[in-house]
Amino acid sequence: MPFPDLTQPELGVYISNVEMPEDFDAFWQTTIAQARELWGDVRIVPEPTTLKVIEVFDVTFPGFGGHPIKGWLILPKERKGRLPLVMQSIGYGGGRSLPHEQLHWAASGFAYFRMDTRGQGSVWSVGATADPEGSFSSSPGFLTRGVLNKNDYNYRRVFTDGVRAIDALVALDFIDPERIALCGDSQGGAISIAAGALDPRVKAIMPDVPFLCDFRRSVAVASRGPYLEIVRFLSQHRDKSQPLFETLRYFDCVNFARQSRANALFSVALMDEICPPSGVYGAYNAYAGPKSIVEYEFNNHEGGQSFQERRQMAWLSDLFAVTS
Amino acid sequence: MPFPDLTQPELGVYISNVEMPEDFDAFWQTTIAQARELWGDVRIVPEPTTLKVIEVFDVTFPGFGGHPIKGWLILPKERKGRLPLVMQSIGYGGGRSLPHEQLHWAASGFAYFRMDTRGQGSVWSVGATADPEGSFSSSPGFLTRGVLNKNDYNYRRVFTDGVRAIDALVALDFIDPERIALCGDSQGGAISIAAGALDPRVKAIMPDVPFLCDFRRSVAVASRGPYLEIVRFLSQHRDKSQPLFETLRYFDCVNFARQSRANALFSVALMDEICPPSGVYGAYNAYAGPKSIVEYEFNNHEGGQSFQERRQMAWLSDLFAVTS
Amino acid sequence: MPFPDLTQPELGVYISNVEMPEDFDAFWQTTIAQARELWGDVRIVPEPTTLKVIEVFDVTFPGFGGHPIKGWLILPKERKGRLPLVMQSIGYGGGRSLPHEQLHWAASGFAYFRMDTRGQGSVWSVGATADPEGSFSSSPGFLTRGVLNKNDYNYRRVFTDGVRAIDALVALDFIDPERIALCGDSQGGAISIAAGALDPRVKAIMPDVPFLCDFRRSVAVASRGPYLEIVRFLSQHRDKSQPLFETLRYFDCVNFARQSRANALFSVALMDEICPPSGVYGAYNAYAGPKSIVEYEFNNHEGGQSFQERRQMAWLSDLFAVTS
Amino acid sequence: MPFPDLTQPELGVYISNVEMPEDFDAFWQTTIAQARELWGDVRIVPEPTTLKVIEVFDVTFPGFGGHPIKGWLILPKERKGRLPLVMQSIGYGGGRSLPHEQLHWAASGFAYFRMDTRGQGSVWSVGATADPEGSFSSSPGFLTRGVLNKNDYNYRRVFTDGVRAIDALVALDFIDPERIALCGDSQGGAISIAAGALDPRVKAIMPDVPFLCDFRRSVAVASRGPYLEIVRFLSQHRDKSQPLFETLRYFDCVNFARQSRANALFSVALMDEICPPSGVYGAYNAYAGPKSIVEYEFNNHEGGQSFQERRQMAWLSDLFAVTS
Amino acid sequence: MPFPDLTQPELGVYISNVEMPEDFDAFWQTTIAQARELWGDVRIVPEPTTLKVIEVFDVTFPGFGGHPIKGWLILPKERKGRLPLVMQSIGYGGGRSLPHEQLHWAASGFAYFRMDTRGQGSVWSVGATADPEGSFSSSPGFLTRGVLNKNDYNYRRVFTDGVRAIDALVALDFIDPERIALCGDSQGGAISIAAGALDPRVKAIMPDVPFLCDFRRSVAVASRGPYLEIVRFLSQHRDKSQPLFETLRYFDCVNFARQSRANALFSVALMDEICPPSGVYGAYNAYAGPKSIVEYEFNNHEGGQSFQERRQMAWLSDLFAVTS
Amino acid sequence: MPFPDLTQPELGVYISNVEMPEDFDAFWQTTIAQARELWGDVRIVPEPTTLKVIEVFDVTFPGFGGHPIKGWLILPKERKGRLPLVMQSIGYGGGRSLPHEQLHWAASGFAYFRMDTRGQGSVWSVGATADPEGSFSSSPGFLTRGVLNKNDYNYRRVFTDGVRAIDALVALDFIDPERIALCGDSQGGAISIAAGALDPRVKAIMPDVPFLCDFRRSVAVASRGPYLEIVRFLSQHRDKSQPLFETLRYFDCVNFARQSRANALFSVALMDEICPPSGVYGAYNAYAGPKSIVEYEFNNHEGGQSFQERRQMAWLSDLFAVTS
Repeated sequence: MPFPDLTQPELGVYISNVEMPEDFDAFWQTTIAQARELWGDVRIVPEPTTLKVIEVFDVTFPGFGGHPIKGWLILPKERKGRLPLVMQSIGYGGGRSLPHEQLHWAASGFAYFRMDTRGQGSVWSVGATADPEGSFSSSPGFLTRGVLNKNDYNYRRVFTDGVRAIDALVALDFIDPERIALCGDSQGGAISIAAGALDPRVKAIMPDVPFLCDFRRSVAVASRGPYLEIVRFLSQHRDKSQPLFETLRYFDCVNFARQSRANALFSVALMDEICPPSGVYGAYNAYAGPKSIVEYEFNNHEGGQSFQERRQMAWLSDLFAVTS
Repeated sequence: MPFPDLTQPELGVYISNVEMPEDFDAFWQTTIAQARELWGDVRIVPEPTTLKVIEVFDVTFPGFGGHPIKGWLILPKERKGRLPLVMQSIGYGGGRSLPHEQLHWAASGFAYFRMDTRGQGSVWSVGATADPEGSFSSSPGFLTRGVLNKNDYNYRRVFTDGVRAIDALVALDFIDPERIALCGDSQGGAISIAAGALDPRVKAIMPDVPFLCDFRRSVAVASRGPYLEIVRFLSQHRDKSQPLFETLRYFDCVNFARQSRANALFSVALMDEICPPSGVYGAYNAYAGPKSIVEYEFNNHEGGQSFQERRQMAWLSDLFAVTS
Repeated sequence: MPFPDLTQPELGVYISNVEMPEDFDAFWQTTIAQARELWGDVRIVPEPTTLKVIEVFDVTFPGFGGHPIKGWLILPKERKGRLPLVMQSIGYGGGRSLPHEQLHWAASGFAYFRMDTRGQGSVWSVGATADPEGSFSSSPGFLTRGVLNKNDYNYRRVFTDGVRAIDALVALDFIDPERIALCGDSQGGAISIAAGALDPRVKAIMPDVPFLCDFRRSVAVASRGPYLEIVRFLSQHRDKSQPLFETLRYFDCVNFARQSRANALFSVALMDEICPPSGVYGAYNAYAGPKSIVEYEFNNHEGGQSFQERRQMAWLSDLFAVTS
Repeated sequence: MPFPDLTQPELGVYISNVEMPEDFDAFWQTTIAQARELWGDVRIVPEPTTLKVIEVFDVTFPGFGGHPIKGWLILPKERKGRLPLVMQSIGYGGGRSLPHEQLHWAASGFAYFRMDTRGQGSVWSVGATADPEGSFSSSPGFLTRGVLNKNDYNYRRVFTDGVRAIDALVALDFIDPERIALCGDSQGGAISIAAGALDPRVKAIMPDVPFLCDFRRSVAVASRGPYLEIVRFLSQHRDKSQPLFETLRYFDCVNFARQSRANALFSVALMDEICPPSGVYGAYNAYAGPKSIVEYEFNNHEGGQSFQERRQMAWLSDLFAVTS
Repeated sequence: MPFPDLTQPELGVYISNVEMPEDFDAFWQTTIAQARELWGDVRIVPEPTTLKVIEVFDVTFPGFGGHPIKGWLILPKERKGRLPLVMQSIGYGGGRSLPHEQLHWAASGFAYFRMDTRGQGSVWSVGATADPEGSFSSSPGFLTRGVLNKNDYNYRRVFTDGVRAIDALVALDFIDPERIALCGDSQGGAISIAAGALDPRVKAIMPDVPFLCDFRRSVAVASRGPYLEIVRFLSQHRDKSQPLFETLRYFDCVNFARQSRANALFSVALMDEICPPSGVYGAYNAYAGPKSIVEYEFNNHEGGQSFQERRQMAWLSDLFAVTS
Repeated sequence: MPFPDLTQPELGVYISNVEMPEDFDAFWQTTIAQARELWGDVRIVPEPTTLKVIEVFDVTFPGFGGHPIKGWLILPKERKGRLPLVMQSIGYGGGRSLPHEQLHWAASGFAYFRMDTRGQGSVWSVGATADPEGSFSSSPGFLTRGVLNKNDYNYRRVFTDGVRAIDALVALDFIDPERIALCGDSQGGAISIAAGALDPRVKAIMPDVPFLCDFRRSVAVASRGPYLEIVRFLSQHRDKSQPLFETLRYFDCVNFARQSRANALFSVALMDEICPPSGVYGAYNAYAGPKSIVEYEFNNHEGGQSFQERRQMAWLSDLFAVTS
């Protein structure tokens, strides 16, 4: 029996007590700097489709450790001037899938990049990116892979890949480096928050029902989904609770939120059993940039879906001055 | 415990024993003719979106009984000559949703029409069409609505709406009446088969994991999903089994398939617990037009998803000679 | 994860904050008045059975809109003078079933009327009444049928049928119009409360684990059952929460309870996952007539069953002075 | 995964291979004879109720071992001549419950006796009869209590109680010893078959979805319910399979059916997951007396319920010449 | 929906309000004294195994009522002087199983006795001890067997067996009567607490996630497992709640804990759905002897398993001065 | 709905049609040879425990790629001459756990080695061995890690570790290289079969309910457990079925069984939903060495547990001439 979550109005004023490690910035600066030293080629290959007004490219860029990371870059065929960029990260277990599935950003005049999460992409949509780094013995699943050492933890690589994707894309002459936005739901929302905090070039983030927020609380409240991988892990490794949560402080979106400056449009689902609303509010209430949040009162983890996408398209078109 | 379904190679040669009512054609000709007498206005209203290369219209046309039926008409903004039409019907419980969700047909140069199913659209995606022989769109229970009398049965209205949608769309000057295709999965696949058999203007159908096929067998084999509404209904109305199955003969896709002439690209999922593969093969093996089928061996009712869409786009672009 | 419900002693003092619409009375007076204008014949047909000391009649009376509503009227064969009447309404999804199932009221010297709920009666016991504003009796989905407009809402028709049943029965010369009682569990309990409040001829109500009480709270606390149809509906129709709850104020038993005058014997189950105890207490604590309540501490939604029936027979025999 | 059951037409010709022990008759004759030596008083106490046309008595009679067994005897208040008797046994886990629940037999002119099953009556309806005999270490549940020795087995006591109930009731001057019928569903159906075979005074049995038929097969096919207690027991007592099934031959209704002479009206549910149809047909096809069976094609273990009761009342009224 | 349990720091200060019956001591002194009058032979038979450094004996001793109770006595083969004794009781439904399964106490230099729980041993490990005492009609399961009368209740026999086991073992010349410890998890933990309180010869107890603590609260909070047998029982026997809980006061480990003097090493699992932590703390906080407790924050009812065994071996070796 | 499995007598004669790759032997000879070139130190460290008659060592040996693999080596403290060796591999998700859990082999006079499975050990018992090799994007879980290339597949590393463990252990002077046996259940059983086939020094294997047998069939029949990871993987990677099953031929225990020479004692559970009996018989019937099999008719995947262990101890003590 998980513990019942907060409701409004408690949620609105909930302040997470996630501890900020003293060397949080140093850890991440070093991580990003080391990754940038392992530069490699960015490969951009046209992908054949039946689409006529939209173009697709299969992109491979060097992520953490220089490892090859894949994504689809989807553009309007006719374009004048540099395009604003929306980069989407994917929810837990999914991959970039096939390119024709998500055309609304490109059709609205954006360059849209749909990035694989390394090692994932076999549960609900296909990915094409291996994770060439190994792990301590783990509960099947990515959430505990390498979790006993902050340098080995899976999300050190994943979050770094997000920054490296931006490095790769801003180098393209049809991308406008002044108008970069990140989006994603669940794990993808967490990557948006983290990469948005780590990279000052990001001007807007749109995290939906984000994962990896306020670990201690979310682990106690979630009643299903991947937070429970931590419960399973610690139910066996009964003596590893302290080092595990010490690692997680470096990857908690509450801490990233405290250092963020980009414009943010969050969404949260008040019946979310997978990413509990108090975890999301723990990050949102700590968020240091300009922000707003949309509540879906009767939704579980699916959240706002295309209702929220419609709102994002309007919000970002306005923020980035994309007019018809 | 449902009974185990057939596997290959039995599936490939399975012949359904669904009985064809003598007045099957008469019943449907009368139905369609009566519906056409209740003509009304077709309303086509531009829908504001952020999309730039694609245009959306909110269409309302008179369906069975002249009742207003809604759909999204989604077109490439730049177009020369008449466009081939792809009309999609929706799976059980869903609605036309928001228009930006499905852009791949319009982006590939087709006029794409995403039609509401009357009375549905509250379970997994929103609809906007009431069933005025019933009530505003509501949670499920459609499979037994009116089932004791073929004239009252829910799918008499639904299938007729499919034909009336074509009536409405071929009247538009940018639609090519010689290149009309229908698609849909599950209930949407059944509507494709039925409307494709009832309307000779349809040149191609692409039903995925179709529902409403070989009722007697599917009801015995399905282990979850809406076929079980019939089990529940008959478990109470213990004396109504005979009239119920008599009605269903008029709506069984096996019977429609026997009279079909359009080109068909089916798909089937061999682990489908909701629409058992033998039901799908019962219709496919009876299908009288040119046909092929794609098997997804390890999929449940989700079937091929975007893998199958990609195949459909290639197949139909070729059949309808849509070139880049 | 639904939110945990209240326990005693909080339940005993819980005051629901359901809002009373200003035109609540006007709405219902108009509704009843309009229904009464559509008078029609009451048909009372003897039903053949093997029963010897009890008689059964198949009754059809004009309900809301003059639509035909069915019920079983079950009487002791030997009777002197006018009989007190107990009218029972049925739980969600059920129908009046076969007449020999419930003989205890007639065997105790009462006229007993077991009324169908329109459109229901295919889930756990059979009904024979269509909802002609909808379709023939079908599987569930009634809680959201027409819910966006108070004039179309399913329960406007259902509650009115309850009053019209009394109209039909008091016209019979063997019924005592001074001794009318209503009972029912779950949805049947809600109909008892509503019709008891709308019709001053009702002298006693016996609602068990009543449904349709304190919607906002019950929807948040129920962990299974039909209240969740509202959650599912609003999880898709994300922009319809405000009009939906506005409609429901006209149908909330808390509001009917505030205006009731009949003697009431409630029952509640403290482990009820379908009709949470705080919803029941929300109505009970607001009830304006003389009242008592029986608590079943270890029961779920089945409540007191025959233990409560035994208590009801004693209570009502006493109140209506039915002696051996 | 249980193994799939037979369907029609296989069911109709299925012959069970249950072995008949050589000393089957001797075992039961000795058992009944010993029980009869432990005679004791039959206590018949009027039970106060609100019922007016029906009378209830609380009966206690000496069962196996002379242990006190309870039942409700329910009679029409006005009676001329001796009444035919219907004795009902109860399904697994239930008890005789409160007397007003089942009035249709008494109201149809029968003496009706609703007998407790010793030790049961706490799972779905209350009983009042202890089982004063102990057990070998058992899987919680009655099906394995004493199962390693045919003299200790729970159903030796239970079946004997059925015969002893008849001994007690035929001694009453208002019971007609020439018109005795047994009924019951599930475990109650099994008791009807067994006691009907053991006692030649029984003229009719009406077993519904009977339990304890063709153990070996039923245990392999049932997917839930008490047959699985045997699976659980043998999954621990891995070396006890042989003696267990040896005991069960003495209690298998297939063997009782082979020796039965009474008129029988069976019913079976073809989707029964608890008492698989092939087990029921194993007993039915072996039944040596005049017989008929009603099939409920779309029902699970609930079977025909009041539809079957209605049929039983007509069938038995006719067989026993009970006229209005 | 069970009610959510307490968390820390509330757990640490939770004081159970279980009532102590005035005749608690008298009841138990009489019970033990009566049992001791029914002395009988203790049988100790060598059990053949392949083990070389460890010896196994099959022990049968007279328990409550003089009934034969079984256990395995497992000893190091080489021994000098009297051995300290660890007696383990078994969790709900299990039995003593095969002797080679638990060798760590004997291999650490202890005499280890693994005692059957009468009537159990068919659900997850085999037992060999019948319960020759009968029961009032019960929910299948041991928790309600005889619960309406404290003299008949199952655990009167079970707890007494624990004391009688010690009587039998201290009579052996290789057992040190000054060094007796009890252990067990779940039901076995409860037996440890009860027998440890009843018998002053016990010097140490090691209950893990103990069952039968603070019944009223545990029954309300447990979401699965045998506490729910009480809910099921009372959901049928709606009028038996008062006598049931009156009996249980005599068997509640909170009351035993209040009178205990032995050294105690408890463990508790904070996510335990079967034996809620507040019940365990209710007993622990009431425990009157020297005590400590180990918390497993992320474990459900499996608790600490071999992590806790390792801790117990170290703690008890130290307490009993067992050196290498 | 998985397909129903075979029963006896079909199981006894079932011949799997798993294809043997032509280069099967070459593939494995190369793999083992390469692993042996990456020799490293074997570390053997005494582990402090409270055990007195048994000694424990923490062993680390170089496995595939020279990666460090952990295991517990557990020995009788007093030993004369070389000891026969039993090496146990662990079921899916588990690790070597704590050493005092399994003492029966050492107590019976064997050297017992309990080996970690690399990367596992967080689901049901703890492990201490990382898997330093990465993976293609995978379904969370080990069964699909690297499955698209036989050189990358997880079990190439795991099976090789088994051979390398023997390399490490036979070098110890108290181990008898002529008496080496392997055991394990589920995945551990598969490792026994594979390593027993690959290494001629193995004289006996005791696989219980082995996993990784007859993949094609087992994947179609299993209704839960890790075989379904393949279904999930292929339900997304719809175009990868052919290369996946091509890889698996190199790891199918049917192929290893065809080449085995060691004495084998198998066990199988006929109600096994995780490792279907036909898969086990597919391997057993193909097994080329002397063999016998124990059937557990009423067990699911838990199989024979300590009943089988007892049998193994007797069988192996006899085969290896270990006398008391």
